Amino acid sequence: MHVTVPTTTDERAAGPGRQPAPTVDLNADVGEGFGRWELGDDAAVIATVTSANVACGFHAGDPSTMATTVRTALEHGVAIGAHVAYRDLAGFGRRYVDADEAELAGDVLYQIGALAGICRALGARIGYVKPHGALYNTIAADDPRGARHARAVLSALQRYDPALPVVGLAGSAFLRAARDAGQPVVAEAFADRAYTPEGALVSRREPGAVLHDADEVAERMVALVRTGTVPAVDGTEVPVQAESICVHGDSPGAVAMARAVRDALTGAGVDLQPFAAGPRAG
Amino acid sequence: MHVTVPTTTDERAAGPGRQPAPTVDLNADVGEGFGRWELGDDAAVIATVTSANVACGFHAGDPSTMATTVRTALEHGVAIGAHVAYRDLAGFGRRYVDADEAELAGDVLYQIGALAGICRALGARIGYVKPHGALYNTIAADDPRGARHARAVLSALQRYDPALPVVGLAGSAFLRAARDAGQPVVAEAFADRAYTPEGALVSRREPGAVLHDADEVAERMVALVRTGTVPAVDGTEVPVQAESICVHGDSPGAVAMARAVRDALTGAGVDLQPFAAGPRAG
Amino acid sequence: MHVTVPTTTDERAAGPGRQPAPTVDLNADVGEGFGRWELGDDAAVIATVTSANVACGFHAGDPSTMATTVRTALEHGVAIGAHVAYRDLAGFGRRYVDADEAELAGDVLYQIGALAGICRALGARIGYVKPHGALYNTIAADDPRGARHARAVLSALQRYDPALPVVGLAGSAFLRAARDAGQPVVAEAFADRAYTPEGALVSRREPGAVLHDADEVAERMVALVRTGTVPAVDGTEVPVQAESICVHGDSPGAVAMARAVRDALTGAGVDLQPFAAGPRAG
Amino acid sequence: MHVTVPTTTDERAAGPGRQPAPTVDLNADVGEGFGRWELGDDAAVIATVTSANVACGFHAGDPSTMATTVRTALEHGVAIGAHVAYRDLAGFGRRYVDADEAELAGDVLYQIGALAGICRALGARIGYVKPHGALYNTIAADDPRGARHARAVLSALQRYDPALPVVGLAGSAFLRAARDAGQPVVAEAFADRAYTPEGALVSRREPGAVLHDADEVAERMVALVRTGTVPAVDGTEVPVQAESICVHGDSPGAVAMARAVRDALTGAGVDLQPFAAGPRAG
Repeated sequence: MHVTVPTTTDERAAGPGRQPAPTVDLNADVGEGFGRWELGDDAAVIATVTSANVACGFHAGDPSTMATTVRTALEHGVAIGAHVAYRDLAGFGRRYVDADEAELAGDVLYQIGALAGICRALGARIGYVKPHGALYNTIAADDPRGARHARAVLSALQRYDPALPVVGLAGSAFLRAARDAGQPVVAEAFADRAYTPEGALVSRREPGAVLHDADEVAERMVALVRTGTVPAVDGTEVPVQAESICVHGDSPGAVAMARAVRDALTGAGVDLQPFAAGPRAG
Repeated sequence: MHVTVPTTTDERAAGPGRQPAPTVDLNADVGEGFGRWELGDDAAVIATVTSANVACGFHAGDPSTMATTVRTALEHGVAIGAHVAYRDLAGFGRRYVDADEAELAGDVLYQIGALAGICRALGARIGYVKPHGALYNTIAADDPRGARHARAVLSALQRYDPALPVVGLAGSAFLRAARDAGQPVVAEAFADRAYTPEGALVSRREPGAVLHDADEVAERMVALVRTGTVPAVDGTEVPVQAESICVHGDSPGAVAMARAVRDALTGAGVDLQPFAAGPRAG
Repeated sequence: MHVTVPTTTDERAAGPGRQPAPTVDLNADVGEGFGRWELGDDAAVIATVTSANVACGFHAGDPSTMATTVRTALEHGVAIGAHVAYRDLAGFGRRYVDADEAELAGDVLYQIGALAGICRALGARIGYVKPHGALYNTIAADDPRGARHARAVLSALQRYDPALPVVGLAGSAFLRAARDAGQPVVAEAFADRAYTPEGALVSRREPGAVLHDADEVAERMVALVRTGTVPAVDGTEVPVQAESICVHGDSPGAVAMARAVRDALTGAGVDLQPFAAGPRAG
Repeated sequence: MHVTVPTTTDERAAGPGRQPAPTVDLNADVGEGFGRWELGDDAAVIATVTSANVACGFHAGDPSTMATTVRTALEHGVAIGAHVAYRDLAGFGRRYVDADEAELAGDVLYQIGALAGICRALGARIGYVKPHGALYNTIAADDPRGARHARAVLSALQRYDPALPVVGLAGSAFLRAARDAGQPVVAEAFADRAYTPEGALVSRREPGAVLHDADEVAERMVALVRTGTVPAVDGTEVPVQAESICVHGDSPGAVAMARAVRDALTGAGVDLQPFAAGPRAG
């Protein structure tokens, strides 16, 4: 979230002799209903964040839901991200699917394009891409499977738009691969997740992996933006370089926590602003 | 197919004192496999026609198949159309689905966008849109249901790109509605279908609705382009104003018939050329 | 709901000289989540009704949700119905799909069998079948389309189990066709819907079609069971012969209304009992 | 395929002093179309084998296709197997999907039940279960992932019918787990695959993994049945204990090879018969 990442924050660069306010983006998953099914309070979440990860139909998000979500993002001036996933509606994109590289690249392009089509009709545009769920986790890992699917995602992005930012886990193998490929990257931290001393997320299978105290979470995120570190599970301070913070909105408690993070950040003088271009087509 | 349809053939208008060669477009449905399943010989069909209607995932066409099809269209310089359908993989888009207007408009945008995303990554572009199967037939009809779904399709196209041509049945209610909305329209005839004296297609439930003799079909299409009429089932000549002729490619016999139509047209001095922009992004 | 409908209530027939308590079944749609998505409070609903219409995967209900729902029905001793639908996950089965007769019969068998497979593994069984949503409404109508899909449903049921009861709208064309085919039928009324003087449901497009006052609804259902009539929208009493009453559970208000109906019926001495065999196999 | 596997071949046991003819089952995947798409020549394949693995809708096989396939199996008296797969229509079930154990067990029950429903309506029955594609390969492997999905499959089978035979790769971890669970198992060999000296299949990534010479394949299978061994890639004879031989039918060449295997076996005096109950219910 630091002003020292010039590739995607040129527009925020301060002039000489002036200390800019620290800035960070807040992102959340939205549009995750499908047909009759709703999930979370998108209007409340979009009013809270600066970037909205919009489901593109493979893990959630039928076209009507996508259109509604894009309209809400437009109303709030919130950047729109294509939240691309494995083809897995029954598993909500949370299950690894062993797609081959060409298949996965095609699936990513299909989803980005589908959202772009809806955006175009509504006068909106896609500002970034964020892989979802199991795809996100797979490509974050530093192993052959992760590398293969990271290549697929990056091959899709490079061919679709080599200037389109992609969001990934701070410190992950995917972000390194994306940087190497020349794709603009945005590192993100998770507001409600505990970190290991090495800067990785504590596995959800471990106790204490998910934080539930909104005040504590808000305080941690203020520290993250101000100091570039967050307290690890062992009490040490671990550096986490993140330009965006992911919050959740799929339950009333989640929305309240997202608001607490937002209020704490703005109260601490942090400038909340999207890393990506705004939602309105230009 | 006549030079007297100025709305979409301005660019082909002849200068004074010069009689242009008659022109027509040949289109066919392609990319209609899905995953493991293949359908028809796309390479042979695309080599025969001037416009390729590419399935967009709702009735057929997974992203990998779509990418392969777009590549083949690029190789042959054949215009690419988005072949949009009801969401009905199990029914191949041949079953009416009573979607509401907003749903259907969203489905159309989603499909066009998805194909556009794949095209963009491959240096291609969409030249036109053609509704498929039951959607095609529904909006062709002059009844409230057809009018409602026609409005949905046109609302999607108007918002996506009011200059993108849309293909429909010559003489149909949909073409009239599209013209009224200001969307460029392309009227098409079906090479292998019998016509009523009123210029409608003979229902497939009637005997003789589908023609199987390639020579007869080819001869009819030459007459169609030269005279603007085709022999109806009762022997009378019926006017059919068509700028494109739809041929099929889903069986070896269909490919042979498509070639016969093509050869007869070029042999008769007809200029085969797409009505739409070429496949290469420009 | 009267003891005078001998075809399906033989077992409840009273001996000579004894006036039996009036009985009725309460049914509700359950298991209508899918994967990550939940819908309604199934535990509360199943605790309220005597028959549970379990979604079978075509409009809602992934296998895990189906298993959970069957387990809940077993715990409460509530009869299990196969809630079969058009293949339309995106439309929640509320959109007419123009399937041909053999396709639809296959789809119905597939769904019944799938639920039966899950039931068998859990020591449960299917007690009845109830078409869902657009399929329910289509076959209720006395027109060629309705007759065609009614034939498809009945052909599936006759071949699967000619003794399996099927639920349909009281007075509908489907119930007549089912009776003619020899399939046991169960007529149902809708607790929260207004009726025309002819005994049909007031269309949802009309004002006042859906009743929202739980006390009024409960009172109407007591009258229905006691007198076999319900007040129509014009104030006249219209006869409605129903052995089951459909209540809803997809919102907190709906669950409250379902409970109000149940409490009013039991308070009025009505015996609530399923028309079908209990959920336990054997 | 030997009479020395008493658990599933009791009925074929010979009396004292009499040498029975060697027997083996031939199985093939069928019903692998979906809607408009066909795959292979099911009629020819079913006329050649003794057991038909019928796709159940998750990797292929819409209900109408399933019904057609069951009818063909009935006509030829060929045993019907439920060919269960990961939920992966786009990938034809050939991609690993990281389902959790309860999900997968539910998916297996759903598919078996669906086929059983169609069978019941047609007077047929399921004689066995065979996992398909990536699921087959996953559970064959002796690793934690394979063990987890093997448990899911076996938990489904144990609860559905602990007497229903399940087909798996000869020598695989899955067969051992199934035997340990008490489920009847049928070991199978692949006619057109090369074997390692250890009795495993040569990976498809290796040259020579798939055999293409029908005569060689047929000869190998005769040897397999007669001697219980097959020549490995290094020329040594490797023991393969198989009661069934899997042949293919998804291309004209595959059907010809299947016939060659059948003819060679019967010519060598081998008795071809299904290990499972015949297709007719009752």
